[in-house]
This record gives sequence, structure tokens and C-alpha cells, in this order.
Amino acid sequence: MRAAYLYGPGDVRVIDVPDPVIRGSTDAVVRVVRACVCGTDLHPYHSMKPTPHGSSMGHEFVGVVEDTGRDVRTVKKGDLVIAPFVWSDGTCDFCREGLQTSCRHGGYWNAGGGQAEAVRVPFADGTLVPVPAEENSPLIPSLLTLSDVYGTGYHAVRAARVTAETTVTVIGDGAVGLMAVLSATQFGARRIILMGRHKDRTDLGHEFGATDVVAERGEEGIAAVRELTGGDGTHVVVEAVGHMPAYQQAVGIVRPGGVISRVGVPQYKDAAVGFGTLFGPNITLTGGPAPVRAYIDALLPGVLDGSVEPGKVFDRETGLDEIAEAYRAMDTRTALKVLVRP
Amino acid sequence: MRAAYLYGPGDVRVIDVPDPVIRGSTDAVVRVVRACVCGTDLHPYHSMKPTPHGSSMGHEFVGVVEDTGRDVRTVKKGDLVIAPFVWSDGTCDFCREGLQTSCRHGGYWNAGGGQAEAVRVPFADGTLVPVPAEENSPLIPSLLTLSDVYGTGYHAVRAARVTAETTVTVIGDGAVGLMAVLSATQFGARRIILMGRHKDRTDLGHEFGATDVVAERGEEGIAAVRELTGGDGTHVVVEAVGHMPAYQQAVGIVRPGGVISRVGVPQYKDAAVGFGTLFGPNITLTGGPAPVRAYIDALLPGVLDGSVEPGKVFDRETGLDEIAEAYRAMDTRTALKVLVRP
Repeated sequence: MRAAYLYGPGDVRVIDVPDPVIRGSTDAVVRVVRACVCGTDLHPYHSMKPTPHGSSMGHEFVGVVEDTGRDVRTVKKGDLVIAPFVWSDGTCDFCREGLQTSCRHGGYWNAGGGQAEAVRVPFADGTLVPVPAEENSPLIPSLLTLSDVYGTGYHAVRAARVTAETTVTVIGDGAVGLMAVLSATQFGARRIILMGRHKDRTDLGHEFGATDVVAERGEEGIAAVRELTGGDGTHVVVEAVGHMPAYQQAVGIVRPGGVISRVGVPQYKDAAVGFGTLFGPNITLTGGPAPVRAYIDALLPGVLDGSVEPGKVFDRETGLDEIAEAYRAMDTRTALKVLVRP
Repeated sequence: MRAAYLYGPGDVRVIDVPDPVIRGSTDAVVRVVRACVCGTDLHPYHSMKPTPHGSSMGHEFVGVVEDTGRDVRTVKKGDLVIAPFVWSDGTCDFCREGLQTSCRHGGYWNAGGGQAEAVRVPFADGTLVPVPAEENSPLIPSLLTLSDVYGTGYHAVRAARVTAETTVTVIGDGAVGLMAVLSATQFGARRIILMGRHKDRTDLGHEFGATDVVAERGEEGIAAVRELTGGDGTHVVVEAVGHMPAYQQAVGIVRPGGVISRVGVPQYKDAAVGFGTLFGPNITLTGGPAPVRAYIDALLPGVLDGSVEPGKVFDRETGLDEIAEAYRAMDTRTALKVLVRP
């Protein structure tokens, strides 16, 4: 089959690899219907150490079950399924608590990525969610967001305990930032400031419920949010970027007693957390990789009945063989998020 | 009057200064009945830049109101009062939310400290809490803990949302750490591991509800807590020290999805918060200076009826003129916490 591999910065290739097969009794093999490229994929796309073997890519996909191991119970051949960006056994204490990203037997899609024609899925029962839809359904893009970005934005807002009393700033107008806006709207946040400077994206942010848009960054961006909020900043800041300037911006605009919720994978190890930044004003820092598997049950009904359309974050589609163009388009910000059709 | 001033590392002097007087209409002047020395005082005691003018010390005291400005309504001459370690107007939005440490007109006792015969208290109505007790009451030590350490330990546990399902580790067997143990017991925590190596203190920790004591520090301490908890660490770690090794220890023993709650004033600016420390396992970092004023209403009844005895953290008393000995005793860990009698 064909699969996308990254060999070094900017070097995405689609190569022939062996078809995946059932190895364990809890495996499923899923034929990919749609995958996509994630903002997180851009981090290795920028800075990966070149390797002659390459690294398989992709951690978001919906597909159709082609085969299952003998112990698989909850999905069967022919089912349309959503695959969260981590696989998880579904039975350990962390999975039962809804923290599938810390599953005792789980892992990230670092071996057999979703940007391929098919994927072997370990712990199919714990990982995959069957959905009552066909593979040619117009809902596919929205269902695909449940693989990662919608659940990730939702995680940011949920971890920050947003309520109707809360004001929220979202840093980053990528797909995760926009999904955080949508989620904050669903939690009833009374004000949602979106920081981003791509008008097509912030327009979609308005559609998802953003009440204000701030295009400035850094000190100017901090000043703009403070001006909008009587000098105080907002109760919650969702940091959906992962770079240090975004963290610093979050510290600059969070209200005393408030919460910074990070869902952009941090590209730094250390950050300011002392008296003058987090401690003195009693700021809480939360977030992490979203256990999206835990949220699909809650978010799926709105997608199926069409009351939310998170799939609007996809503004382009390519074939798998043209996926290098998808990376380039997202890297240059000429595309927001690209669907990939094997 | 006599007042304690710090002039540089290890250089505490008791000097004559003018008696405090009412300056604003919301002021009160309070004669100090008992003050004390705080672990936080030891930070400048170690590292303060020498100054010829000195710096007034002390931020915890109970006393008797001697005089009030014309707009003071809730306390009157002769009242025994508890003074939280910050003063606050009691009327701004932050005070109404219970975050008096961020009061729009408040501040720390950095001008006219509590280690003195008397103190001018700004915003007496917002700051002071009158209590139905006499100045010679045996409850005075326990009432004095409501100035800081009891409310601070309580804040750590409350911010971490400890419940009956929660396992807690407390790093630090100083007064704040022991008050965090007491508070975790009050919140019903099902297991409380106290990390400390002074037996008299950890014995008191057991009395306050600690279920386990770990004397090791650093990597050995982390290994010991992990062994006690099946390898996972505890849901909550209260960091009641403020030095980087304690932070690193907290990161090492918090369970995935858990909370590190800091109430030791951090003596560092930056710390590890990246994928490998906080982000990957979805760890929340919370805490800060405790708005103890907000907690006195909840904690006072238990002190007054004797069902809790937080005053047991005081194991020595000195006169004000001998306060340098109190600093030395706390610095050398020969005293846990020292009462000061003007």
C-alpha cells in the first residue's frame, strides 16, 4: 500500500510499504477513508533530524474496518470508525477515568501512521468508535475532527472549567484554536477573544462563536486584549500554538486567579512559572494531549445531527500521493487544514 | 514602640520606631498580642541585599484594636482580631471572588510589619476579622495560624480540589506542610503521604492525619513515594517549600492527570513544564499566595470549638526583643514555628 513518510525537514514522500495485517487478537485493520495533516505534524516537518528510514506520518483518520482479531467485540468488518490520535486498551484505570492518553498499554500513532491507505489498530475495542454513517457521507470531515482537533479544543476548554461566567481568550487561529472557540461557545463562555491574523480563519472563528478578534501579537496583542477587558485579561487563556511566544502571551493576558490551558504541544522544556508570572496572581496552568476518545460520546451527537459543523476547518483536499503539497500549504498558511484522500 | 527590622542576611534587630497612628479613615491601629516568624521570612533572612535602612518584618499577627478611622464599621476598640498576611479592601471584584491577594487596593505587610508592638492596618473592615475570644485565651496560637499557615495549607488543598477519592503527597514538614496535611484530612483525602525528615514534625503530621511518612528526598524520595503508590505517584502533590528541588520532586511523584499545588513561595523564575514533565501526562500546576481572608469564616469555628488545634505547630515562644533567636532557631530547624510576644 501507499503511505506518507517524513525523512527530514520539508521532505515528505509517499512510498510503497507492506499492507498492514492483524498481529494480535485485539487488532483491527482499517482502510482509511479520509486522513488529514495536523498542525502538530508541522513540528517535525520543520525540525526533524534527517533519517534514511523515514517516519510514518498521520494520527487522524476515519476508515472502514476490513479485518479484526478474534477478541474484537465492538467493531466489525464494514463499520465506519473514528480513530483517536492515541490507541488505548479501554480497560485500565486511566482509560476508565477518561485519560486514555495515559493508558497503561496505549500509545501514539508512531508506528503505522494514518496518512496511508490502511492502518493496523491495536486494542480496536478500546480505541475505535463505530459511527452510524456511510463512507461517502457529507459528515466525514466533521467526523474526522473527532480524531483530534475537535476533542483537543474541547479538552482545553473543559480542563479550564469554562462556564457561562467565564471570559476566554484563544491564542492561535489554527484548527485547534478554532475548535477551542467552538467548544467555549458550547460551554456558554460569555466572551471569547480569538487571537489570530488570518482573516479567513478568524471569520470562521466568528462563525464558531468568537465575540472579538485580536490580530496583534506579542506585547501589542497583550495590550489589545487588556484594553478589551478593562485592563484585567480573561479568566481563561487557551494556548493552541505550542511556541514560547504564545506561552508568554498567555501569561500576559490571563486574569489573576485564572487558568492557562495548553493544547499546543510545547516546543520548549522550561518556562516562567515564578512569583511574577504564575504564582503571585494564583494562575493555574493546565492542559496536555487530549484524551479525545473520552469525548467522542459527548460530541458525536451534535456532529451527526448537524447542529455543529467542525468539519468547516477543512478548506482543501488532496490525494495521498499529493500529500507533500498539503504539508506545504499548511506550512505557508495558504490552507487551514487539509483532508487527505487515499 | 519596638519593631523587628532585617538589615541583611542573618541581621535581625529590634529597634525603636514611631508608634503607628491612624492616617486614613478606613485604618485601624492594632496592638499586637502575638506575632510569629514564618518560613517565608527565612528567604530574605538568607539572601536579602544589605540595606542601611532595614526592612520591617512580620506578616502574621493577632491583636487588639486600639483605634479606628471614622469609616471603620466592622471592628471597634477592644476587639480581638486576626490579621491576614495581606490587607484588602473587601469590596473590589477580586475580594468578592475570594482572591484578596489580588485586591485592587490591597498589599502585603511590607510597610509596618507584624513583628512589632503595634501595626497600622489599612482597610480595617476588609482586612481584620474580629473573634469572640480574649487576648489571654489558650486559643491564641491556633487563631494566629489563621493569619497565614492554616489558610495557606488549606488553599493548597482546596486549589487542588482534593476529595475523598484523592491521594495526596505533601512535600515539606514545615508549618505550612503540616497545615496542608490537616486540611487534606478535613477534605477527606484517602491517603496522605508527608515528605519530611524531622521526626517531631512528622509525628505531628501523623497526628494531623498523615497516613505515611517518607524521609528520603530527591530521586530516593520519588522512588519511595512511587513504591508506596504502586508506581504511579499521588493524584495531588502539595509543594510547601519553594525551592527547585521540591518542584522537581513534585513532578516526579504526581500521578498522570494529577495536580501540583504550590504554596511555598518559589525561589526560582523558570521551571520544567514541557512534554516530558507537565504537558505529556496532563499535569495541572496551581497554587499561589493564599487568600487566607477568604477562608477564615470556614476555618474559625473548628478552632473556636477545639475540634482542630493548628496552634500545635508552635513549639517555642520568645519575647519581641529576643526575636533574632527565633529566626536562628527556625533557620537551624531547632524550632518548627516560633510565637513572638511583644
